[in-house]
Amino acid sequence: MEWKASEIAALVKGTVEGDPNVIVTEPSKIEESKPGSITFLANAKYEHYLYESQASIALVSKDFLPEKALSMTLIRVDQVYPALQQLLEVYQQQHTVPDGVDPGAHLHPGAVLDPSVSVGPGTIIQEGAQIGARTIIHGQVFIGRQVMIGEDSIIYPGVRVYHDCKIGSGCIIHANAVIGSDGFGFAPDGQGKYQKIQQIGNVILEDQVEIGANTVIDRATMGSTRIATGCKLDNLIQIAHNVEIGPHTVIAAQTGIAGSTKIGAYCQIGGQVGIVGHIRIADRVRIQAQSGIAASIEEPGSAWYGSPAIPYRDYLKSYAIFRKLPELFKRLISLENELQSTEELSE
Amino acid sequence: MEWKASEIAALVKGTVEGDPNVIVTEPSKIEESKPGSITFLANAKYEHYLYESQASIALVSKDFLPEKALSMTLIRVDQVYPALQQLLEVYQQQHTVPDGVDPGAHLHPGAVLDPSVSVGPGTIIQEGAQIGARTIIHGQVFIGRQVMIGEDSIIYPGVRVYHDCKIGSGCIIHANAVIGSDGFGFAPDGQGKYQKIQQIGNVILEDQVEIGANTVIDRATMGSTRIATGCKLDNLIQIAHNVEIGPHTVIAAQTGIAGSTKIGAYCQIGGQVGIVGHIRIADRVRIQAQSGIAASIEEPGSAWYGSPAIPYRDYLKSYAIFRKLPELFKRLISLENELQSTEELSE
Amino acid sequence: MEWKASEIAALVKGTVEGDPNVIVTEPSKIEESKPGSITFLANAKYEHYLYESQASIALVSKDFLPEKALSMTLIRVDQVYPALQQLLEVYQQQHTVPDGVDPGAHLHPGAVLDPSVSVGPGTIIQEGAQIGARTIIHGQVFIGRQVMIGEDSIIYPGVRVYHDCKIGSGCIIHANAVIGSDGFGFAPDGQGKYQKIQQIGNVILEDQVEIGANTVIDRATMGSTRIATGCKLDNLIQIAHNVEIGPHTVIAAQTGIAGSTKIGAYCQIGGQVGIVGHIRIADRVRIQAQSGIAASIEEPGSAWYGSPAIPYRDYLKSYAIFRKLPELFKRLISLENELQSTEELSE
Repeated sequence: MEWKASEIAALVKGTVEGDPNVIVTEPSKIEESKPGSITFLANAKYEHYLYESQASIALVSKDFLPEKALSMTLIRVDQVYPALQQLLEVYQQQHTVPDGVDPGAHLHPGAVLDPSVSVGPGTIIQEGAQIGARTIIHGQVFIGRQVMIGEDSIIYPGVRVYHDCKIGSGCIIHANAVIGSDGFGFAPDGQGKYQKIQQIGNVILEDQVEIGANTVIDRATMGSTRIATGCKLDNLIQIAHNVEIGPHTVIAAQTGIAGSTKIGAYCQIGGQVGIVGHIRIADRVRIQAQSGIAASIEEPGSAWYGSPAIPYRDYLKSYAIFRKLPELFKRLISLENELQSTEELSE
Repeated sequence: MEWKASEIAALVKGTVEGDPNVIVTEPSKIEESKPGSITFLANAKYEHYLYESQASIALVSKDFLPEKALSMTLIRVDQVYPALQQLLEVYQQQHTVPDGVDPGAHLHPGAVLDPSVSVGPGTIIQEGAQIGARTIIHGQVFIGRQVMIGEDSIIYPGVRVYHDCKIGSGCIIHANAVIGSDGFGFAPDGQGKYQKIQQIGNVILEDQVEIGANTVIDRATMGSTRIATGCKLDNLIQIAHNVEIGPHTVIAAQTGIAGSTKIGAYCQIGGQVGIVGHIRIADRVRIQAQSGIAASIEEPGSAWYGSPAIPYRDYLKSYAIFRKLPELFKRLISLENELQSTEELSE
Repeated sequence: MEWKASEIAALVKGTVEGDPNVIVTEPSKIEESKPGSITFLANAKYEHYLYESQASIALVSKDFLPEKALSMTLIRVDQVYPALQQLLEVYQQQHTVPDGVDPGAHLHPGAVLDPSVSVGPGTIIQEGAQIGARTIIHGQVFIGRQVMIGEDSIIYPGVRVYHDCKIGSGCIIHANAVIGSDGFGFAPDGQGKYQKIQQIGNVILEDQVEIGANTVIDRATMGSTRIATGCKLDNLIQIAHNVEIGPHTVIAAQTGIAGSTKIGAYCQIGGQVGIVGHIRIADRVRIQAQSGIAASIEEPGSAWYGSPAIPYRDYLKSYAIFRKLPELFKRLISLENELQSTEELSE
């Protein structure tokens, strides 16, 4: 992809200072920028890198005053960071699959795709599935019966969406994620064996949800496992059957949430957290990485740590003493001895 | 799928009370049931929902006496829960892949499939593989050389079974699970580098085993990694080379078991548990979520918690004091001070 | 695969004692060896198994003196273990995909493959990708645009390599691993919602890197997520954007490393470890399974344990007291009572 400085300036509503015809092919970090790339200065503390940079173009603030001479073309904008994101979004769009449905895809005639949908080779779309406008489904994806996907979503290779699940608009699902596998439900038969409980619900991802690679979201036993609008889930996360997660909650990698738990809105959950089943977490709760949540959290905005988790500050205080436990134990023994002698003395 | 009340009653050996010709298309939870669905009342505490329910049919006990008028058709059965499961099993069977082998599958002529086997598009079945009667292999599955799969098993899209592994009858393997990848075995070369140790064993899943989505079971270095009859493994679990798990043990999501460890029968292992290699766990042992098991557990039926894990009750007691450590430390200091003054007094 | 004793002896530079024409088809463990297999004696403590073994050939040391009569053919070598590995490598090579590019693969005409490359059915190789000599790409793999892969690497079914990533020579990537998915980067919009930060960097795996099944390595926001030469990563591991791992570091299953952290060379990291973002870990550091690393580790070769982790021995000492906390607390209370009485006495 070749970009002229003047084209970039038009895109981000900036002004060119230098050669408007210089061409770049990729973005670059300010500390590693090569000729033919466009870099950016969003944070003043990295300014010194700019004077050594070999980038052909730099995106800078309209107020930026260089302290030394600069050889590259500058594009000045009101706010560097949003302009950069705008640029990168266009840059990323070149990595989509080709327009249209690849002849190597396996589409059931009873699936309904908007004409603007892209589908890569090897993808299976089963009977009754419906896919909305401009959604991109890469190759090697499985879309089961009656699955509904909204508009402008991107489904990466190897994603499996089991039958009856619903995915909203503007969603991104990364490679090898699984949506709608059976919940882990078995009835003990009284002799230590287990009978499978049929899992006939589904999974609903609302709009603007992003799901990381190899994350698994199980279908509900009945009803729906639901991930609300704007949630962002990292890689290798486990969401069990009938879990519900409120809007705009973010969850870091390798966290697991057990069955039927309800998480509030705007929560921040760290990596490798475990949350037991059948509890409620209030809105805006923050949970430290590796914590284990064993009971409902009622207080909105509270912070938690430990396994089982206790209030964040309490855990840090207790853990500070935990580190001193051998010393503390010695002091206790020494007290016992002293008291013993004191008593003997007073006898 | 359309069902008449009279057909359902025949299936579950129940009696119809109301219109035997009313038609439903899906099951529903009692608190969310819509017209055209069949709901159920298995637990008396949910009875109040039934009076507001819009379901067209309700499955109820033969002894159920409604306190208010009910508009829907009732089907009365001896035991509601088993009848419901029977119904749901039939309901689920509509979500299988089409009968027969899809022309888009890649079958080696040297693979042996029972004529009743179903295979979806994009699936690879390599030389020497053998697949038993009525087994369903969805699309996009990989079955390596000499793999043997029994009867009535279901393999979901994206499952990879490496060469020489054996899967029993009545097994279910969920999407993107990996069976038989190389064990993590490397010999240090004395200078800090590692030489791969060839992993030439296999994985054996006995009968009625269920494996969750994105779970990985590594092949043995030599011999077999073995998961015995009736085991149920949740999603994103790691089973290392040469592990053996006894019959009817259940393991929750994201747990990892290191190499050569032997787990007993009827154990219950929580989520995110870690178990070190080369140890033995007795039968019927229960391990709390997030625990770390660092040594063999000899006592059958014992319960464990913590990292490294200690007996469950002991962990809870110690953790209760852990929470009070800052206070305990203050009390220790205050004792030291008091004793100091007492000694000064007595001097 | 049929092997004569004389052929095996030629391969491992050993001498035959017994019938040089006896044929074996597979290796076996000494305690389970069957007729038609070749077993080995590398460790004297297993010698007693050899006298009961039914193996047709045994690989033994040139100095081995049997205490009892042995019926099988012996192959004597200088060092048993390296000879065994050499044998197993040849044995394993029969499990590769067929030579050449399967007609069921989806290759872009703008991809450049060495003529010796093997590609299985259903694999997608996009525009601009380059694959080096003798590399084996199984079926159902996704290789995105501009991906570069070196020589003699093996990519198992279901691996997804996103655009622009680089994989070295001699690498092995196991089934369903994901290389180059988007880093987990979102900018809060000030009202609790999140805006995606475009992830335009890549992932670089250097040479001789092995990646386990279902492991995920995210692409950098800009620049590269880098795994250096000789690193071995187990299954279900999470490596976040812009992480860098030094040469010959090994990481056990289910560990997660957060964004921009730099790990040294020759480190040993246990399973289910969590490491926070933006820190540095020195060379040769060892981290116990399930630990949480919350701050940089400066001291090379140090060992760590706990969450948050402290020096390994300190954790064990503190945890030993943790187990005694209920007793310790009782002794504290009893001291308080005694001191109380002592004071009362002295009043």
